[in-house]
Amino acid sequence: MTSSIEIQRVKSSKIASVDFDNLPFGSVYSDHMLTCDFVNGKWQEPKIVPFAPITLDPSAKIFHYGQSIFEGMKAYKDTDENVMLFRPLENCKRLNKSAERLVIPQIPEDIFMDGLKALLEVDSDWIPTNDGSSLYIRPFMFASGTGFHASPADAYKFIICSAPSGPYFAGKVKVLIEEKYARAANGGVGYAKAGGNYAAQFYPTQLAIDKGYNQVIWTDDNSHQFIEEAGAMNIFVRINDTLITSPTSDRILDGITRKSILQIAEDNGIDTEIRKISVGEVVEAAKDGSLKEMFGAGTAAVISPISGFGYNDNDFDLPELENPYAAQLKKLITDIQTNKSEDPYGWRVML
Amino acid sequence: MTSSIEIQRVKSSKIASVDFDNLPFGSVYSDHMLTCDFVNGKWQEPKIVPFAPITLDPSAKIFHYGQSIFEGMKAYKDTDENVMLFRPLENCKRLNKSAERLVIPQIPEDIFMDGLKALLEVDSDWIPTNDGSSLYIRPFMFASGTGFHASPADAYKFIICSAPSGPYFAGKVKVLIEEKYARAANGGVGYAKAGGNYAAQFYPTQLAIDKGYNQVIWTDDNSHQFIEEAGAMNIFVRINDTLITSPTSDRILDGITRKSILQIAEDNGIDTEIRKISVGEVVEAAKDGSLKEMFGAGTAAVISPISGFGYNDNDFDLPELENPYAAQLKKLITDIQTNKSEDPYGWRVML
Repeated sequence: MTSSIEIQRVKSSKIASVDFDNLPFGSVYSDHMLTCDFVNGKWQEPKIVPFAPITLDPSAKIFHYGQSIFEGMKAYKDTDENVMLFRPLENCKRLNKSAERLVIPQIPEDIFMDGLKALLEVDSDWIPTNDGSSLYIRPFMFASGTGFHASPADAYKFIICSAPSGPYFAGKVKVLIEEKYARAANGGVGYAKAGGNYAAQFYPTQLAIDKGYNQVIWTDDNSHQFIEEAGAMNIFVRINDTLITSPTSDRILDGITRKSILQIAEDNGIDTEIRKISVGEVVEAAKDGSLKEMFGAGTAAVISPISGFGYNDNDFDLPELENPYAAQLKKLITDIQTNKSEDPYGWRVML
Repeated sequence: MTSSIEIQRVKSSKIASVDFDNLPFGSVYSDHMLTCDFVNGKWQEPKIVPFAPITLDPSAKIFHYGQSIFEGMKAYKDTDENVMLFRPLENCKRLNKSAERLVIPQIPEDIFMDGLKALLEVDSDWIPTNDGSSLYIRPFMFASGTGFHASPADAYKFIICSAPSGPYFAGKVKVLIEEKYARAANGGVGYAKAGGNYAAQFYPTQLAIDKGYNQVIWTDDNSHQFIEEAGAMNIFVRINDTLITSPTSDRILDGITRKSILQIAEDNGIDTEIRKISVGEVVEAAKDGSLKEMFGAGTAAVISPISGFGYNDNDFDLPELENPYAAQLKKLITDIQTNKSEDPYGWRVML
């Protein structure tokens, strides 16, 4: 299947220098990467090359107009050395939705999928097997075409890199419900994994960190009365025994972990609701004790439990539960991802 | 003043290959560029080097999280070969405002100003003298630090490139008042010259172009009832003899051309108002004939007159005036910029 992709192998692997028992998240890179250029109106042949610096003209539009999108995925290896991915086609489809909004040419599914598989074959030794570790995969696309005019570029690069990684967050996070800043406009690019969406979060997040929180809970930019996302993740709130998440919109990312968790929760007897969540409701629930859990959901952290939140200069602690939904659901989804359980959904893709 | 900046000159200039009578905008680059790196917590020594490709790690955060900002400026040369800039310190200050919002380290004013002057000295032959032409200058900063985690980078590049350029737009533009998409959120980064703000405009702009318009008039993301910007420019509307522009906010760029035009208009007997402009008001004024002019204002185009607008499936033409404000104000400001008139404001900086 992958035989058509040209492979330029590294002369010597750097894998022996990596301590797989103490992996950071996303900062040690595997030996190879997949690259594919869009020039003269079409995608060229993809190829696998050594992970190495990229050379770009100073007038490349990526530097000036933020025309960039990405995805995050993980590859796992089970005890029998089987390599697997989780719903990879969903990432490809979402990358192309982001591409449409950012006027970046869509990547053909076969380049994405065959390229990904070829890369994982070449770098299969880089997939960690320790519990909680995985090979974090970063497909991304950006404008390499040049010119100081604010218009779409005429050339792009699609690249897939990978990084053997430990867990994204260590422990529970304390969050601040945002009352001033916002990450997305109505009719904007909030639903896309556009680079600019992330840089826009850094300053408010830094202010929250300075106040003693780890992350921001984003609210709508108009009223700040509705909860939308948690940092770079989707948000779930458990009130009594019902698990609630905000509906996707043009401001909210259609998270693959989000929709997988919704499905798993429903199939495991947890009541779920997809509806707008008001800040007032969450504060009231925290006060009367019906707020049981909050957590973020995304590829990197899978599920990131929240220990408490700040709002309007008040802090609210969440209870310590015996067997929280967050832990139950995290186990159920990661067991599917890592081939420790049956996969009734057909989400796991074995290579 | 510029003696402290190291200069690595090109071996041979490419200037002889450039047709200065037929310059495009922003796509031919001068021989040199200024570069300065932020590493280990501080800005290093700036230097002038040949304009040449930049090499970056594939995990550099510019590719993933959109941490980039820029400025646009112009240098002019008069008939006596004097080189001049227009309010350059304003660009430096605004770049640093953008830097703060994007969590990019601020560039010291002396690196910006001395670097700019040194670059213009080295590349002074590249400053066009034809009417309407100028050396377009592009200072920009971006995250060169690496890592697949959505947080500010630990290394940055500040670069100034320049491009001898003809006029940005040719002729009047027809615009579409946007009813669905938006460029900026309340509490977002719309007021910053952040790269991501521009990519976010491409798709709605392309839809407008497909309908026969040249540019989009952006409205607020909540109600779409108030006019905010024109493409990548500030917007001015003339109703009867009053020139109106929207107030700056966290969604609207504090344009240097915008505020210069306001000042010049006031000093030349034109009534100005800085206030919210409703779409309904503009449509009514178009219908009753009191809408005399609309134009965009920004560094690249200076003033870009609008011939008509579309809204809610209706097209409205603007009248052809004898001596429109757009032409009067463009002459007044460019005469100051190019040393054809006195500069009572001290805006012109001769090098």
